[in-house]
Formats: sequence, C-alpha cells, structure tokens
Amino acid sequence: MFFASDNSGPVPPQVLTALAEANTGYAMGYGADAEMAEVTARIREIFEAPEAAVFLVATGTAANALALSTLCQPFETIFCTPTAHIHEDECNAPEFYSGGAKLTLVPGAPGFDDKMTPEALRATIAKEETRGVHGPQRGPVSVTQVSERGTIYSLTELQALAAVTKEFDLPLHMDGARFANAMVALDCTPADMTWKVGVDAVSFGGTKNGLLGVEAVIFFDPKHAWEFELRRKRGGHLFSKHRYLSAQMLAYLTDDLWRDNAVKANDNCAYLAQGLRRTKAPFLHEPQANMIFAALPRATHQRLFDAGAAYHLWDGPLDGDPQEQVAARFVCDWAIEKQQIDQFLALITQPE
Amino acid sequence: MFFASDNSGPVPPQVLTALAEANTGYAMGYGADAEMAEVTARIREIFEAPEAAVFLVATGTAANALALSTLCQPFETIFCTPTAHIHEDECNAPEFYSGGAKLTLVPGAPGFDDKMTPEALRATIAKEETRGVHGPQRGPVSVTQVSERGTIYSLTELQALAAVTKEFDLPLHMDGARFANAMVALDCTPADMTWKVGVDAVSFGGTKNGLLGVEAVIFFDPKHAWEFELRRKRGGHLFSKHRYLSAQMLAYLTDDLWRDNAVKANDNCAYLAQGLRRTKAPFLHEPQANMIFAALPRATHQRLFDAGAAYHLWDGPLDGDPQEQVAARFVCDWAIEKQQIDQFLALITQPE
Amino acid sequence: MFFASDNSGPVPPQVLTALAEANTGYAMGYGADAEMAEVTARIREIFEAPEAAVFLVATGTAANALALSTLCQPFETIFCTPTAHIHEDECNAPEFYSGGAKLTLVPGAPGFDDKMTPEALRATIAKEETRGVHGPQRGPVSVTQVSERGTIYSLTELQALAAVTKEFDLPLHMDGARFANAMVALDCTPADMTWKVGVDAVSFGGTKNGLLGVEAVIFFDPKHAWEFELRRKRGGHLFSKHRYLSAQMLAYLTDDLWRDNAVKANDNCAYLAQGLRRTKAPFLHEPQANMIFAALPRATHQRLFDAGAAYHLWDGPLDGDPQEQVAARFVCDWAIEKQQIDQFLALITQPE
Amino acid sequence: MFFASDNSGPVPPQVLTALAEANTGYAMGYGADAEMAEVTARIREIFEAPEAAVFLVATGTAANALALSTLCQPFETIFCTPTAHIHEDECNAPEFYSGGAKLTLVPGAPGFDDKMTPEALRATIAKEETRGVHGPQRGPVSVTQVSERGTIYSLTELQALAAVTKEFDLPLHMDGARFANAMVALDCTPADMTWKVGVDAVSFGGTKNGLLGVEAVIFFDPKHAWEFELRRKRGGHLFSKHRYLSAQMLAYLTDDLWRDNAVKANDNCAYLAQGLRRTKAPFLHEPQANMIFAALPRATHQRLFDAGAAYHLWDGPLDGDPQEQVAARFVCDWAIEKQQIDQFLALITQPE
Repeated sequence: MFFASDNSGPVPPQVLTALAEANTGYAMGYGADAEMAEVTARIREIFEAPEAAVFLVATGTAANALALSTLCQPFETIFCTPTAHIHEDECNAPEFYSGGAKLTLVPGAPGFDDKMTPEALRATIAKEETRGVHGPQRGPVSVTQVSERGTIYSLTELQALAAVTKEFDLPLHMDGARFANAMVALDCTPADMTWKVGVDAVSFGGTKNGLLGVEAVIFFDPKHAWEFELRRKRGGHLFSKHRYLSAQMLAYLTDDLWRDNAVKANDNCAYLAQGLRRTKAPFLHEPQANMIFAALPRATHQRLFDAGAAYHLWDGPLDGDPQEQVAARFVCDWAIEKQQIDQFLALITQPE
Repeated sequence: MFFASDNSGPVPPQVLTALAEANTGYAMGYGADAEMAEVTARIREIFEAPEAAVFLVATGTAANALALSTLCQPFETIFCTPTAHIHEDECNAPEFYSGGAKLTLVPGAPGFDDKMTPEALRATIAKEETRGVHGPQRGPVSVTQVSERGTIYSLTELQALAAVTKEFDLPLHMDGARFANAMVALDCTPADMTWKVGVDAVSFGGTKNGLLGVEAVIFFDPKHAWEFELRRKRGGHLFSKHRYLSAQMLAYLTDDLWRDNAVKANDNCAYLAQGLRRTKAPFLHEPQANMIFAALPRATHQRLFDAGAAYHLWDGPLDGDPQEQVAARFVCDWAIEKQQIDQFLALITQPE
Repeated sequence: MFFASDNSGPVPPQVLTALAEANTGYAMGYGADAEMAEVTARIREIFEAPEAAVFLVATGTAANALALSTLCQPFETIFCTPTAHIHEDECNAPEFYSGGAKLTLVPGAPGFDDKMTPEALRATIAKEETRGVHGPQRGPVSVTQVSERGTIYSLTELQALAAVTKEFDLPLHMDGARFANAMVALDCTPADMTWKVGVDAVSFGGTKNGLLGVEAVIFFDPKHAWEFELRRKRGGHLFSKHRYLSAQMLAYLTDDLWRDNAVKANDNCAYLAQGLRRTKAPFLHEPQANMIFAALPRATHQRLFDAGAAYHLWDGPLDGDPQEQVAARFVCDWAIEKQQIDQFLALITQPE
Repeated sequence: MFFASDNSGPVPPQVLTALAEANTGYAMGYGADAEMAEVTARIREIFEAPEAAVFLVATGTAANALALSTLCQPFETIFCTPTAHIHEDECNAPEFYSGGAKLTLVPGAPGFDDKMTPEALRATIAKEETRGVHGPQRGPVSVTQVSERGTIYSLTELQALAAVTKEFDLPLHMDGARFANAMVALDCTPADMTWKVGVDAVSFGGTKNGLLGVEAVIFFDPKHAWEFELRRKRGGHLFSKHRYLSAQMLAYLTDDLWRDNAVKANDNCAYLAQGLRRTKAPFLHEPQANMIFAALPRATHQRLFDAGAAYHLWDGPLDGDPQEQVAARFVCDWAIEKQQIDQFLALITQPE
C-alpha cells in the first residue's frame, strides 16, 4: 500500500536487461557512447525535432537547474508557481546554478489545482522590470506538466501561456518529471505538448516513470548545446560511464515502455480514485494523472498508517474541521498492484 | 519641487568640510585610518554597544547584501516583505552575495503599510523547512525601518518580531537606510531600536540622510567581523582611501547632524502632509516619517509634472477609478525648502 | 586493447546482481533506504571510524566539489597540484560549488610524478595570506591518491603532508577516485591511508573500480554531515531512487570485491609494464598502480592506433625528439584481458 | 616620507572643489545625472571612441571584477600573470563576480618585471582547452598597465599580446589602475594604448592618481553596456548620488589634471630613483613609472622605519644574503614633496 511517491517503486525488467546488455566491452565515456547517439536519434524522432539538442542527467533537480541556468542570466528572474518543484523542493538549486537568479511566483488560479493562468503570468511578468536596473530582469517561464498538484495543462492552456512568453520574448521551460503521465492523459504527441505549443526546453522525466535515475534535457534550438554541456560538466553531472544512462533511456523509449508505464500509473490511479469516491474522502480536486489529493478523517488516517499504508500529508484546503481531517496525497506508480489498492480501499471503507 | 527620493538632494556643508579636513597628508588605507577608529568608537558609544563590529561601505545595497550574506548560508532562505528593498530594488544582490540563497516573502499586513506582522512571520517561517533537505533552510529575517511604504515599526512591534526570530533561533537584520528618520520619529535611542529589541545586525544608513554615499554595517556580536571584512573586500567594497568614508560618517555623527537632518526631513514631510490634507489627494495611509503615498487625480498629476514637480508613481490601491487617478510617492529630504513645498501645494490646490 | 581509461570497461556481474536484488518492492527515497544504512555501517567498519558521516553521489566531480565546498569558504583558496583532477578536469566545479574559491597550485616535485611535497606545500601555504584581507585566505589541502600521474603517496609521505596542514590548521581532503588501487599497492588499511595519517575527508571512488557510477564521500568528523546533505541536494546530486546507488556500493564492499578489482587492475598494469620494458617505450616514471606513462616512437604509435589500440597522448617530458616520439598514458582496469595485453605487446614489439 | 602606496595621499583641491560645485540642488540618481553625460562625452573624446560605453564605480576591484565578469562565462578561465592584482589582491573577487571562473597564470618573463610575453601567453592559452568539456574554456586575457612590478608594456608589446588574443578570439582587458602613469611615460594617447592596439575593455583608474575613489570602466564595443549596468547594480556598485562620482571624474579630465598628476608622480619617482642610485640600494629592475623595487640592507631598513619612513617589503629576488637584505617597494604619488624625498635620501645615505 505504497502511495507516497512514484519514485519509490521498482523499475521494469527491461531496464535491468538493458543495463546488462550495455555491460560488455569498452565504450567511450562522457556521452560519446554509441547508445547515446541512438538516444538522441530516437528522441529527435519521437519529438519530431531533427535539430534538437539532447542530454542525459541522473536527477530531476539537475535537469531543471541546468536547463534553466542555460536559459537565464544571474540578474534575471524565473517565473513559476508557488508549488513548483524548482521553488519548493530543490533546496535553491535553480538559484545556485543560475548564479543567483530569483524565482518570481505567479499566483496559482483560485482553487487547489495551482496551475498558472495566462492572465496571472502576464500580470506578474508585466509587474517585474518596471524598475529598470533596480529589479531583476525578466527571465524564463517554467511550467510543470503534470503539475505538483496532479493537474494537467491542456494543449490550449499551454498555448495560451506560451503566447504570453512570446509576447515578452521569454523562453519557456517545461518541468516534465511526469511528462509521460500528462501526455498519455492528453492523448497527444510529444511534439504537440512541447515545441508545437511553444516550449523551448523540456526536462523529460524518466525516473518517476520506471528508470533508476535518468532524465533527458531537450533544447529545441540546438544553439544552447555547448553551453549546456559545459554547465553539466561543471555541475558534476556528466557521467564517465555514460552508457549506463543511455541504455536506460533507450530501454525506456523502446517498444513504448515509457507510454505503457505512464498508462499503467494513470490507470492505477483511476482505479484508486474510483474506489475512493465511494468513501468519506472527498477529493480536493478531480484527479487527472497519477496523483490524488483527498481529505481524510483523522481516525481513518490513523488506521491506515497503523496498517502500514504509506502516503504524504499535504498542506491543502479542508472544508471541515482540521482537527478532524487531514489532506493527503496519494501517488500511484506503474508497478503498484491492484491487490494493494484493493486492500487499501478495504481499509479505508471499513467503518470506524 | 523635488520629491522623487531622499537620495537626490545636496549634502550639508559639514560633510564637505569634513572631506576637506581629512584631505591632508598620508593615511593608512583600507579601513586602517585614524578616522575609522573614531567612527567605531563613536558608533559603539551611540549604540551603547562596546563590542560591536562596525564597517563602512558606500551603498545601501552593498550594506544589506554583505550583512545578509554574512548571516546566511547559500542553502537557506531570507524572510522579508514583498516590498523590501532587498527583494525589489537590488537586482538580486542578496541572492548573488549569499551564493544563491532564496528570499521568502512574508505577506504584509492588510492595508497598504506592508509592515511584517509577528503572526505572518511565524506562519511563514513555520511553513518553510517542513520539507527537510528538499526545501531551503530557515535563514535570517530582514525588516526595513522606515519601511518602503514610509511606515515605522514601533519598538513593541520590533520586539514582537524579534521574539519570533528568537523562537526559531534566526538572526534579525534591520535595513536602516532611513534609520535616523525612524528613530527621531519614535523618539528613542539607537540601542532601543536595535539590540535592545533583539536586532543582530543593522545597515545604518547615511546616504539618504545627508552623506555622499556611506552606510555603516553594525554587528552587535563581533564574531562576524572577520568574515564580513573578507566578504567586503571580495565584493570590491573595501575603499583604499577609506578615510573619505570615515570622515563623512564622523561628520554625520558629530553635533547630532544625523538626528538634525532626520528631524528636518520628517518635519518637511509633515509640512507637506499638512498641506496635502487640504487637497483632493487622499493618503493611502497616514505618513509617519519622510514619505507620503497619496492618490492624485490624473489631471492634477499632469499639471504638476508639466510644472516640473518630481515624484514617482507607485503601484498602490486606489479607491476611485484608476483611469482618473494615480498613486504617487512623495519623499522629503532634509534640504527641501519650505518655499518649494509651498509652491507645490499652491499648484496642487489650484482648481482644474 | 583498451587502455584509454579505467572508466570505460564493464562492471562485474555482482554489481548488476545487486541492482536486480534491490529492485523489489517500495523503498524510502533520498538516502533513507535500508541499503544505505548498511553502507554506512560497512564503511564505518572498514574505515574503523564509528562516527564517520557517509554519503553517496554518482560522479567523482560531484564528490570532490561537494566535499571541498563543505570544507571551504568562498574567500579561501584550495591547495592542490597542477595536475589535480579538481584543477584540470572538472571545468571549474570546485570554484562553482565553493561560491568562487580559488585553487592555488603547489608545484609538484621535480620529475614527472608530480606529487605534492611537504616542503612545497608549506612554502605555498606560507606565501598565501601574507596579504591580510587582500588575498584569499588559506583553505583546505587536497591530495590525489593515486595521483593523476599514476604515482602513490606512501603513508609516511601522507603523514608529512598532513603535518603541514595541521600546522596551519587546514582540513585535508583526499581525492580517492583510485583509492583502492593505492591501498592494495601500499598493502595498508583504509584507516591507515586516511584518518590515521590525518585525512579529514575522502572522496572514496567506486566508478573507476567497477561500479556504474557511485562514489562515497566520507567525513571523519560528523559535524559536516547536515551541511553536506544540503549542499548535495542543492547541487542536484541527491537521488530519489537512492537504493540503486546503495546497492552498488554494498556489492562493492561485499566479499572484498573492491580490493579484488583493484588488485586485478594493478596486476594487469604490472603485466603490461613487464611487457613494455622489453620494448622501445621507456617509462616516464616507474608505474605504481594501474597507470603507465611511456614514450613511444611516432611510427609505433601510428601502428598501434591503426590496429585499434586505445590510449591517450599526454603532455610529458620526452628525452628524445618530440617529432619522433609521443608520450602516452596506458590505464588498465580490472576487466582487461591478458590476451588483449598480449596482443598489444605483440604489436608494439613488432619491428617497424 | 610616505612611499607605501599611491592610494594614501591627499587629493588635489580641484577634486574637492568639483564636489562642492556639484553639491547644489537636486539631481537624478543612479547615473542619470547631467555630469555623467559629460563624463561619457569627455571619455569618448579623449579615447577617440565615439561609441564606447562608459561607467563609473568606486574601487579598482569593482572595476576589474565587473568588467571581467561581463566578458567571461563561469566555465571559462581568465589569463593573467602571477602578480596580477586580480589574482593576488582582490580576495577572489573575479572568481566571485564571474560565478566561479578560474584564473590561469601566464608565467612572467624571466627576471623581476613579470610582464606577460606573447610567447608565454600563446603557450598557456594553447594548453588550456585541450581537454574539451573537462577543463575550463578559454576566456579573457587581462594585462596590468602599469604592471604590479612598476613596469610598462610598450605599445609594440601590447600589440603583440593583442595579436595572440585575436588569434584565439579572446577579449583583452586592461587593468589600468595606473593608466595615466603608463600613458605619460609612453607619451602616447589613450587610444594608442587601448583600442588601437586591440584592448576591448579597460579599468581606467582615478583613485591612485588623485581621486577620492572613482574608476571608469570603458567598453569599446557598446554591446556590453546593459549587462554591465545590471552586474554593477547587482554588485551594489551603483551609486544613488552618482553625481559625486561624476564630478570627481570630470575634474580629473579637466585641464589635464589626470595627466599632470601622473607626470608629477612619475617625476617624483624619477627624483627618488636618481637619489637611490647613489646608495647601497640596487634596483631589482629599472623603474619605469612611479614605483621602485630595490634591495635594502636590513640595518638601513631598520633605521628608515625607525625614522618613520613608510613603504612595503616585498617578495623579491635578492643578490645578497636575505638575512642581511630586504626587498622594498617605494611608490610615489603626485603629492609627495621633494623635501620628503630629500629627507628620505638623506637618511638612506647616512653611514651605518
């Protein structure tokens, strides 16, 4: 009954097999491995972006901080929502990598979904840089798809945000730690969700969707390539035995493993959601990908924890008395078994 | 009719005289001048702080960024209000000097005065660092006295804020760019407004109150002294001909020049306020030091500008239609002549 | 015939098996996995350091830069040799992570081995910080064991260096990317080569000796632990699925795999050296671990390259005419087959 | 008898007069003062560079660090000599401002003058960046004119160095803290010594030549202007009451004050040198500007110090026994009186 995160479960056997297959003979290091050439070709194909620059790193924080620092000057500010991973969960990595850029928070829409709206983005951008040399200059905009609240920007919503960034001539970055979960939910192509709507760079997540620890950073304009390489090395994120990153990413992109995993995770979540609907655990908003935010009676929460269920409590709006309720986040990964979900639902629906 | 800022007027003759007097013979550089020893002694005396470490720099941004970086680790966050100079007007200097620390905004009290309340501070601090290693750690709290909205924290208010910082064992910094204006308004001593209420370090402003460009940084615990010296040098803020900074600061502290200038500036502002009360320019809040925020009919504003009046438009709440009104900030320095104020008031009260 | 580096060959099967075994069920992320507790216990035992703080990262550059930045203030300088990896091969990572500290080069001993001598270290340290606040302050000393020239500091040599660092009260860091190769060559214990001679922190390499990409950072004084954790997270080097790093390191430390691999690599190198001695390829200095630097006639070099041999040309002193000779570096890893070495030796000894 | 530095003496009366004249009425702050427009025009005229971007800061360290950080990426390295001020005397300011760039030392020519030679520069540049992404990339070259050893690059020497920087397409920066002293010694124009020989940016010193604390940073290609402005503000080096910097610089450039001061300083030094030639104080090299490096018998040194003479001991090559001799640096500023020099010479020539 593990719903704490999608970075805690096992990886599919294909990934370990790929590591074993890559483990023969000698290979050029530092990204010059033959597998990486294949990764680049495959990602360019999948994203319909024959010029794209593609790099692998091992963590999402590295992917985001390195991508943003390549797009940002130290005297600029990065626009994101108050719940963005880059703001809340990276211990100042974007500030560090950018050499001290600021993060300016774009207020989320009313309600709990906390997605960035074009109106709020435009208003926030407009307000910055009204002070000439005194305030930070406008820098990149970063959106998170799937958002940290489990919601998904529609293609239209992304287009509207990108229109604002173009208006101010700012680069648009997508933190796609759960890229695949969003894409299969939207039933669109990688290109649809990125450059076709105006995204300039994407952190294309693998770790939360079945890899040991690999994320791709993709720039649709290859002019950023060399600077990114230098920043990656200087950050200590260039692997000597790079082929083991490449092999994972290749396995991920082979036979639709990445899509299948995302479909499984979303389906598991939908199954859990269906069950939860029959309980005293009202959703804080409608689940869209592989995450559910729900209110739980404290007594129920206690019983679940005692029974070994794992999930995080969250800071969320509760209709009822916070003494009697908690807000909880449930995340499903590709591997969670239906039986575990059933066991959890049985526990939660059990009368107090 | 210059009300744009208190950093645009002339300096009193005593300051130039002091420069001339300092301009004889050879002196040790880099802070080892005899005048600096006097400055340190004088500031320790005035602040009743015989152990305090005292340093001079030439700009307020340098004072704030260097002081905060000495109190802050790069993986921490600094707490301040959304209108703080360190957040809005220093082009990421605190982020730069701290090596990439974050600034976490403590929402100002309702209304326009935007002072930090103990409740908001506690709630904001409490919320940070609930994420263990993932989010930034709690760092120093910085309050601005006089605030950027021209309001003044009472000693009781400062005490209450300091109580919160002590609760969490965080250092308290005061941006005192307008230190003297606040102190004379509160009719208290420098010690009352700083270490006696729990302030650990202060940027003690001189530039906005009559100097060419000198601010003192004061640490009440001298353990920070050597690190600050190194940070100052590394920031390019250690003057070789340091005596010319010392001489200015000495003149400032001699014969109560600093208090007199502040009294003059506040009085000038009170005189302007008195006049404005008789006009169609309602205050956004009650003036307390040497700044007024008021709403102006657009037509009046146009007439004032056409007549050469200088002041800044501001982002402020307006009761009426923003098409017909603007929010304006008027700052009085020690030097503005009553006649200029009268001329301005005559203009403003003139019928459209 | 791959002698280009020890980071290009395969990993032993035990490592992949360990990954597969770790790949079951759900585990706490970010270093809270059960395997990491075992790693810490095991490293403390092996190093006879029951208080040591132990962390894993994925690259040697991350290990060095994070360790040094924890020991170093931004206004200090790090002492190392001109050939140190941290100086030549990390694209300014130490400067970046430390917030702008300097690297001061301690001239290597005459000859090609380029090890740091106590005399040169003392002289270099003594010279720094004679300028008070104007120059950088003295910071940590970093030695590389095995050095980048393939030489090994004896325990006595390390002790003598540590004596100098203690004299000036500076921390001593060891870049142990090839820690095991040195240790088995010296036939000593991990404790002998580190804290017993006065080393404060060590980058304990795994990647060059059989892992996919794992290095441990060990502080013998645990007071550095929390700061390191924050710096690791902020650098993007904290793995969510941390168990896969832990599992590798556990396999490494189990059944002496790490020692066995190092013995194999050194033996392979000795075998190659023995063969080379019979050729026209004089050594630039006597090989000690798993690296050989030798002079090659250009014609021989061309023939070797044409035949597919892989190794790096180096900047080294040549007795003869550089038009006719090259300096070459040959590195043996644990996996290189004797047959490959024989084939290479056959080629090299073949008459022109 | 003050020969310790040229930053310790008084400023000429014209500078104080200029401050007094600037001290009337209200002026736009932050560089928008009318005097600054004049400064820019005047510098463009003097340098025959109608497009040049011109900025003022208050210290030489700020000028150098800000200029270099504008020309340098954090993953690059700056080339300078081992005695460069940016390397030895700025407490890591260039590393700090550049976000962690490295300084690569170009060995000085044999002898004590320590000027950079084109051969050494080319060899050093060529060696850097042979490691691809692993080492830092080649960045700006910085030369110091007058050098820290008091020597002067001839125009031909500068041209030869610039030819090397152009060969590698690297920007050339001149640390001109003693710009005027060099220029009058070479009897050339500002343009001759800068853009005409290939200098891209110059720190044009005023402080050591008669100002309270003002240096100009000049970029001959104005494309750097806006970035520099932002970096200056972010570094806390933008003065609100900027007119007092402008006024100093204007006075400096009026009626050839800057040239006259430099001529006086050089003449004073020549007079001192002439006297010293008759003593037991052999020069370490022939004086060229306003600095002398000489060997002194310890007994003489003791007598001079006892008599109140001020100068610095230096790390220099001594022909005789270091137990019996010291190396001393004597700097003359514009203001030192002949009588002081005579008194000093009388002391030094006095028999032991």
